[in-house]
Amino acid sequence: MNLVDVDVPGARYPIRIAPGRLDHLNEAVPADATTIGLVTNPTVAALYGDRAERALAATGRRVVRIELPDGEAHKDLETLNRIFDTLLSSGFDRRSVLVALGGGVIGDMTGFAAAVYMRGIRFVQVPTTLLAQVDSSVGGKTGVNHPLGKNMIGAFHQPVAVEIDTDVLATLPPREVSAGLAEVIKYGMILDEPFWAWCEDHAAQLRALDPETLGHAIRVSCELKAQVVAKDERESGLRAILNLGHTFGHAIESGLGYGQWLHGEAVGCGMVQAAELSAEVVGFPHADVERVRKLVAAIGCPTTAPDLGVERWLALMRVDKKAEGGEIRFVMTPRIGHAITGGAPEDAVRRVLARTVG
Amino acid sequence: MNLVDVDVPGARYPIRIAPGRLDHLNEAVPADATTIGLVTNPTVAALYGDRAERALAATGRRVVRIELPDGEAHKDLETLNRIFDTLLSSGFDRRSVLVALGGGVIGDMTGFAAAVYMRGIRFVQVPTTLLAQVDSSVGGKTGVNHPLGKNMIGAFHQPVAVEIDTDVLATLPPREVSAGLAEVIKYGMILDEPFWAWCEDHAAQLRALDPETLGHAIRVSCELKAQVVAKDERESGLRAILNLGHTFGHAIESGLGYGQWLHGEAVGCGMVQAAELSAEVVGFPHADVERVRKLVAAIGCPTTAPDLGVERWLALMRVDKKAEGGEIRFVMTPRIGHAITGGAPEDAVRRVLARTVG
Repeated sequence: MNLVDVDVPGARYPIRIAPGRLDHLNEAVPADATTIGLVTNPTVAALYGDRAERALAATGRRVVRIELPDGEAHKDLETLNRIFDTLLSSGFDRRSVLVALGGGVIGDMTGFAAAVYMRGIRFVQVPTTLLAQVDSSVGGKTGVNHPLGKNMIGAFHQPVAVEIDTDVLATLPPREVSAGLAEVIKYGMILDEPFWAWCEDHAAQLRALDPETLGHAIRVSCELKAQVVAKDERESGLRAILNLGHTFGHAIESGLGYGQWLHGEAVGCGMVQAAELSAEVVGFPHADVERVRKLVAAIGCPTTAPDLGVERWLALMRVDKKAEGGEIRFVMTPRIGHAITGGAPEDAVRRVLARTVG
Repeated sequence: MNLVDVDVPGARYPIRIAPGRLDHLNEAVPADATTIGLVTNPTVAALYGDRAERALAATGRRVVRIELPDGEAHKDLETLNRIFDTLLSSGFDRRSVLVALGGGVIGDMTGFAAAVYMRGIRFVQVPTTLLAQVDSSVGGKTGVNHPLGKNMIGAFHQPVAVEIDTDVLATLPPREVSAGLAEVIKYGMILDEPFWAWCEDHAAQLRALDPETLGHAIRVSCELKAQVVAKDERESGLRAILNLGHTFGHAIESGLGYGQWLHGEAVGCGMVQAAELSAEVVGFPHADVERVRKLVAAIGCPTTAPDLGVERWLALMRVDKKAEGGEIRFVMTPRIGHAITGGAPEDAVRRVLARTVG
C-alpha cells in the first residue's frame, strides 16, 4: 500500500492508495463514530455503493445512504440542503461521520456538508475519479457553486482519512481519465520538472491506465499537493500555485455552463493558456509553450479554448476568487517546475485569448 | 469606553462598549479592506442604517448595503443565498469585509456568510439588541436554521471586532430587553454567584435601562462569555455550560415555530426548567429554584412553558445539537454560580415538564 501523510495545522490524516481499499473503508471510520452517512450519486452507487456500504457496516454502526443527483450542475446550495434534510431526519449528531464516495462534486459537497452540519462533523474521502484522487480529495477545500461563480461558497475542512482504491478507475470513462491527468501533469509543471518529463515519457501508459504507471503518478501527485497544503492550508500564498490553469479554466466552465467541459479538461486547456501568458509576462520559453500544448493533447485534453467573446472572457475571469480589488490574478511559470502568482497586463491577456480561443 | 479582549486560538479581537460607537465604525474596518458590505434589516436600517453607513464610508471604501427580511423566520439558507447574490454581483473579493448591524439573526447570518463566502472573509459585529450584545456577538458561533432544528447549519468564525453602542438600546422594545436580560442573569447562574445576586438587586434598574447599571451588566456578561470561549472555542467541553436553559428553550422555539417566542424568552423559561431538572438530578436546592423563577419573572420573561405535548417535547429536545447517540444532554447547576453538563433520566425530565408546562 502507498501511504501519504498530510500534516496541516490542527489536522493530520493518511491518504491510503491501493487496489481494493473499497473493501476496507471500516478502517477509516473513527472508533467513537455514532452513525455513518454514505454520500454518493446513482452512477457510482450502481458500481460501488453496495461494496462500500458493506465495508462500512462492518463497523457495527448504522449506515445511511444519501444519493445526490449526478454532475456539477447539481453542486449547489439546494442539493446541499438535501443532505441536511437526511442527516437531521435520521438523527445524525456531532459524532456522526460522513463518507464521500464519488468524484470531486460528491467530495466537495460532502466535505462542505460536514464542515457546516452542527458547525462541523468528521468525514472521509473515497474519491472514485482520477481527478478527485489526485486533487480535490487532498487539501480540505470544500464547497458548492453559485450561479455567478464556481466554488464561491465553501469552507476549509480536512477529512479524517482519504481512501484511494486504484481498481475503481477501470470503470472511468476515457474523458474523465484525461481530465484527471491534466491535474497530474500540472504538479510537474509547477513543482517538479523531472516528474513533468516522466509524464511526457509515459503519457500513453497513463491514458491506458497501466496500473504501475498510474499508481506512481497518483502517489507523486498526492505527495506534491500534500506538501504544498501543509505549508499553506488557507491559500494565503504558496497554495495559490496549485491553481495554475484555473483562472482560464473556471472561465471556460462558467462561460459554457458547468458540466459542458469536465473541470480537468478546462484546467488542461487553461494550462496551455497559462503557458502562453507566462511567455508574454514572465519569459516562459516559447519552445516550452509547445511542450505544454503537446502533453495536454497527448493526455487527451482540449488545447483550444471556447469562443465566449473576449469581453465575456475578461468579465468571467474578474469574478474568480483570486481576483482582488478588480485585478485578475494568474499563476504563471517562468520555467517548468516553478510557478509564481501575479497580475498580468490586460493587453497581454487579450493577446493570449486571441491565440488560444478557437 | 469599556474594552473586553477576546483571545481564542487563531484569533484575537476587541469588544468595545460605549455610547455612540455607531459613529466610529470605521475604526473597526481593517486597513486592507477592499469593499464593505453592511448587512442589516429594514427595522434597524430605518433607525441606524444611515449613521452606520456614513461612519463606514469614512474609510474611503465602497459600502454596499444588504437588507435582509426581519426575523428568525428568515434565518435560513435561502435568505443567506441573497447575501451571496449581492456580494458576487457587487464584485466582493477575499479582502472584502462584512458588517453585521442588527440583532442575533443578522449577526449569525452575516457571520456565517462571511465564514463561507470564498471560504472565509472577515466581518465586524455591531449588535443592536441587548441579547446580541451580551451573547451572540461574542464567541464566533454563526449559522442558520433548518426546518428540523435551530442553528443546525453553521460554522465557528470569529469577528475582527465587536462594536457595542449602548445608546441603541433606547429604541429596543421592552420584550427584547427582557429577552436580553435572560442571558445576562444566565452568566451569573452558571459562573458568578455575586453577579447573580447583583442582578437580583438591580432587576428593576436593568429593565428600566438605567445606563450605568446596564453598562456594567453588558461588560461583565461579555467578560464572562469571553473567558469561557477563550478556554473552549469549539464547544468540546466547558463552553457547553453557556447553553444552560437552551435544550428546553430550543424545543420551545422549534415547537411553537421560530419567532413566536423571542430566543431570550425561551432561554429564560428554559432556565427555570433547567433549575427544576437540576433539583431532580444534581441536588440544586429547592429554595434556589424559586430564586431562579423569581428573577426570571422579575426581568420580565415567562416562567411557564408552552404545552407542546410531552412526547413532542422529548422529540424536540432529542434533535438538539447537544444530543449524542440519542441521549438528551442538559446543562445543570448544582448551585448558583456553578454548572455541569450531563444526561438526565427520562422520568426526571417528564416530571420537570409536568411541573413547568402550563
